[in-house]
Amino acid sequence: MSAPRPIAVLGGTGPEGFGLALRWAQAGESVIIGSRDAKRAQDAAEKIKQKVGPSANVSGNENLAACATSDLLLLTIPFEGHAALLKQIKPAIGPGSIVIDATVPLAASVGGRASRTLGVWQGSAAQQTAELVPKGISVVAAFQNIGAELLNGEGPVDCDVIVCSDDPNASQIVRNLATKIPGVRAVDGGKLENARILEQITALLIGLNIRHKGHSGIRITGLPVAAYDIA
Amino acid sequence: MSAPRPIAVLGGTGPEGFGLALRWAQAGESVIIGSRDAKRAQDAAEKIKQKVGPSANVSGNENLAACATSDLLLLTIPFEGHAALLKQIKPAIGPGSIVIDATVPLAASVGGRASRTLGVWQGSAAQQTAELVPKGISVVAAFQNIGAELLNGEGPVDCDVIVCSDDPNASQIVRNLATKIPGVRAVDGGKLENARILEQITALLIGLNIRHKGHSGIRITGLPVAAYDIA
Repeated sequence: MSAPRPIAVLGGTGPEGFGLALRWAQAGESVIIGSRDAKRAQDAAEKIKQKVGPSANVSGNENLAACATSDLLLLTIPFEGHAALLKQIKPAIGPGSIVIDATVPLAASVGGRASRTLGVWQGSAAQQTAELVPKGISVVAAFQNIGAELLNGEGPVDCDVIVCSDDPNASQIVRNLATKIPGVRAVDGGKLENARILEQITALLIGLNIRHKGHSGIRITGLPVAAYDIA
Repeated sequence: MSAPRPIAVLGGTGPEGFGLALRWAQAGESVIIGSRDAKRAQDAAEKIKQKVGPSANVSGNENLAACATSDLLLLTIPFEGHAALLKQIKPAIGPGSIVIDATVPLAASVGGRASRTLGVWQGSAAQQTAELVPKGISVVAAFQNIGAELLNGEGPVDCDVIVCSDDPNASQIVRNLATKIPGVRAVDGGKLENARILEQITALLIGLNIRHKGHSGIRITGLPVAAYDIA
């Protein structure tokens, strides 16, 4: 089961969004890079084409325009721009869309450390998203725990992606999308409220990267084979 | 580098403490099981001897007495008894002791779900411990993320143990202790404040266990070999 629709990666000129867009373009998915600046988005798309080859189905556009042409939207933006972007794109989010949130409320957003998080009133960045999108839009939390360096590196990543959503169908679509990244196993992490734990884990991994000079990720062990979505 | 001193496992009659005590007894460590009830502690110690063999260096005692004969104390108690136990044992914690905290503030402690946590004023159960122990006592957060079923099962566990403390020496002692459990790699997770993330991860893993009917754990990937303490 593939995602036939294009994925709009908002914040796709940043390292995390770029890395995800690259991996999906490599897997043959159709990707639209979104940015505040259409030119920067197009440049990023061009860079992906140079890496993947001319057959890569990737384009770039301003965030609002990128939203308007996709119903599978991914947020990979610094937390300080999170609420503002959602308010801006809200009118362009079509009915039945899925908003995937990879945002982490790092304390770095307000001048603190990247190994600490801010408290978000709703519980997590993803739950803040759920409050800010139009009614009936499914929000899915995922991809917080794969570092940009791994995504932009070569070869498979040694990471699981835990996917949390209150919409089981949307969760399944995103788990399928996650398995397009070589090495990734996707795990249904239950309700969207669990995003608060996924977001915390990112801060822990960043702390481990600083302390041990690595590019850490996590694997979930001990679940039955059926619990893992694998490509 | 072994821990020559006995480990007092307070709450060692519960499944988590019992499992850790069992693993350490199997590894030849000296273990004192602590409980509110000395008889129950002695029964648990006897059960471990039956499993490990008569050479097992394990005994049982009331919590306060167990503390008084050890300077390596492990808390594996339900969060609802956490502060009360610490207040009770405080006079018995000798200078230079290390208090290892595996407690997780699950919402189940107040009738909520085991897949959710309570907010702890100090940030985490382990940080609450740091506030309640005598001055100069080192607190180390560890072992939250290895489930009791795995510890009480046979063979190696497929889990990493992240160890957080503001005392690097105490952290190293506990990492060495963690590697006595077959399969475990210990990872220095930095300061004690990071315990709040370790405790959250437990709630996530419990949720995954319920959802997928497994006994989940985590592995940290992507760090240099030197970052992992291995037996």
